[in-house]
Amino acid sequence: MLELKFPERTKKPRKEGITHVLDKGLGLNAVKDLIGTSGDFIDIVKLGWGTGYITRNLPEKIELYRQSGIRVCFGGTLFECAYIQGKLDEYEGWLRDLGFDILEVSNGTVEFTLDEKLKLIERFARSFDVLSEVGSKDVNAVVAPYRWVEEIKATLKAGVFKVVAEGRESGTVGVFRKSGEVREGLIEEIDHEISCGHIIFEAPQKAQQVWFIKRFGPNVNLGNISPEDVISVETLRLGLRGDTLMGFHGGVQSGPIL
Amino acid sequence: MLELKFPERTKKPRKEGITHVLDKGLGLNAVKDLIGTSGDFIDIVKLGWGTGYITRNLPEKIELYRQSGIRVCFGGTLFECAYIQGKLDEYEGWLRDLGFDILEVSNGTVEFTLDEKLKLIERFARSFDVLSEVGSKDVNAVVAPYRWVEEIKATLKAGVFKVVAEGRESGTVGVFRKSGEVREGLIEEIDHEISCGHIIFEAPQKAQQVWFIKRFGPNVNLGNISPEDVISVETLRLGLRGDTLMGFHGGVQSGPIL
Amino acid sequence: MLELKFPERTKKPRKEGITHVLDKGLGLNAVKDLIGTSGDFIDIVKLGWGTGYITRNLPEKIELYRQSGIRVCFGGTLFECAYIQGKLDEYEGWLRDLGFDILEVSNGTVEFTLDEKLKLIERFARSFDVLSEVGSKDVNAVVAPYRWVEEIKATLKAGVFKVVAEGRESGTVGVFRKSGEVREGLIEEIDHEISCGHIIFEAPQKAQQVWFIKRFGPNVNLGNISPEDVISVETLRLGLRGDTLMGFHGGVQSGPIL
Repeated sequence: MLELKFPERTKKPRKEGITHVLDKGLGLNAVKDLIGTSGDFIDIVKLGWGTGYITRNLPEKIELYRQSGIRVCFGGTLFECAYIQGKLDEYEGWLRDLGFDILEVSNGTVEFTLDEKLKLIERFARSFDVLSEVGSKDVNAVVAPYRWVEEIKATLKAGVFKVVAEGRESGTVGVFRKSGEVREGLIEEIDHEISCGHIIFEAPQKAQQVWFIKRFGPNVNLGNISPEDVISVETLRLGLRGDTLMGFHGGVQSGPIL
Repeated sequence: MLELKFPERTKKPRKEGITHVLDKGLGLNAVKDLIGTSGDFIDIVKLGWGTGYITRNLPEKIELYRQSGIRVCFGGTLFECAYIQGKLDEYEGWLRDLGFDILEVSNGTVEFTLDEKLKLIERFARSFDVLSEVGSKDVNAVVAPYRWVEEIKATLKAGVFKVVAEGRESGTVGVFRKSGEVREGLIEEIDHEISCGHIIFEAPQKAQQVWFIKRFGPNVNLGNISPEDVISVETLRLGLRGDTLMGFHGGVQSGPIL
Repeated sequence: MLELKFPERTKKPRKEGITHVLDKGLGLNAVKDLIGTSGDFIDIVKLGWGTGYITRNLPEKIELYRQSGIRVCFGGTLFECAYIQGKLDEYEGWLRDLGFDILEVSNGTVEFTLDEKLKLIERFARSFDVLSEVGSKDVNAVVAPYRWVEEIKATLKAGVFKVVAEGRESGTVGVFRKSGEVREGLIEEIDHEISCGHIIFEAPQKAQQVWFIKRFGPNVNLGNISPEDVISVETLRLGLRGDTLMGFHGGVQSGPIL
């Protein structure tokens, strides 16, 4: 047997080093494959936007994830849809029925004030671990770094479990430029003010994952990882892919390598 | 349970609001997953180009789709290959043996005249629902709108079931520019002359799907949808994804939202 | 039944016309699907970079591929990781335990001299079929054609089974420009000096596959094919997709069609 050395990785249940996966409608065979190959590398599965509401296999799917120690939540858009239709009580009741203990509060599309958002976070934080999304889904909206910092600090104070920095499935909004490039100045500003362990960075593209792992080390929290990229992300964290091989095995053993 | 309101959606068997999916060689586990999560959202599956001729699991696959109320057809390239080899009779016989009741007539690569195409449509329309593809697969061929209109009208008159507006798997030809952008002027010209319910728009990219749904409402016919995007397309139709959430739930309940 | 004519294709076990597939962590249901639809079209599966080291289903997966007559090897990055940690003996032992008879020697990330590489090839060629990767993973490294030729000739002389021309999963390095375009001058230079049957061209993008098939005919060796594109590649080889239909069926029956 070949025993390789790796940078230190956190283990489940993880507070840091979280991999948060975007399931946009996987069937049961695919979920079994995902768990069978890489269940240990996945901490949270998000049933993207409103997909969880219409897929036919919801209870069986949730059960499979749960048995494998993976937490499941709905996307923020479903929250926003319930909000706009005045049905947050029904939404909360449904989450309880499904046995969910984690929920995403977002205003990526529906606009409400930060005050309103904080009240919603406080309300749900009593019963759930709350993920709060920060940043717009609009490719043309560029929010100034100080406003990101302000909102992140306020939502943390209101009791969120982790802040999710918006990137979408595409990785072309929020913390990224339209081209997919990381808004590095924004990230440095956030990192200067807040411990990045509080943040899950949505980073669907490989170059983005590489950037965050090099910048913050193998145990940075990464979100919106596609199911087919989970193993790739884990190899990047461990220096088992060309992009991080020399950083983690060519001398340095852990921590940032940028 | 959470009961959300949605814009009105047609139900199977659908004449409008069709989702036409591109299967380029799915295995049986994947087909079971697709049907299990979203069989109700799929009307037609196309076994892309000549893939149906060489995949090993054809009869079992066809049977799975059929049991779920999904119609199956071959891609137009297989028709063109049979045509160029002078074997349309054998092709027709094979379709009957397989129990197919739908067939695509195209000249995306092989060139024949509109007259020849109309004769072929008339021939096959006696025994099959005929899908007729309009538009070239060549990225450099830009066909004038009046010629699209002319061909669509003629093929409808010859008895086609639906006209398929070419976009390919890539979404970079036919009704789209090389960049993937919708040729809006072309679509407006077609819409001015012909009811768009007669047309299935190939729209493999999300931005394209969003555009057609906003322009024609939740029950526009969309084609060449990737199996992994079927649920996403249905959420777009229902306003359960950020891109159409406000259009369908922020006041307007149905119809176009552009 | 429809019997179409095709350009001549080699059959398994293939020396030329190899399709080499990149498995970056498939689960067992997906592997069964892949084999069930297209096992005859696949010659070698590479468990990409270090993914084989951390996926949980390794022995079962290897067994499934083996039963279907598909050879399995690890990615070159795992070799490089073992090299840099001074554990090539353990690596070799592990390969034997797994029953592997093929191995990739590469220096895509770790730098060592050509002399060192040739010694490693000679060592492993005694017990394995050696795949030797040529070309850098660095998007900014442009290696001159004469150096490619020199290295390919030297590694062939040292006993490699096939030379793998680097393209990565992305198809934007090595024999390709950043844009994914083929470095045609480089390929012509290599072809002028060496029979291209000795080379597996990594060609993950469709336009790249089309280019190589048109240039070298249906039995060119192609690598880093995504599992979901295996059937598409086979249709391109047979002229069952628009891109090669006229070349292979509009008169010419085999050989290059550029």
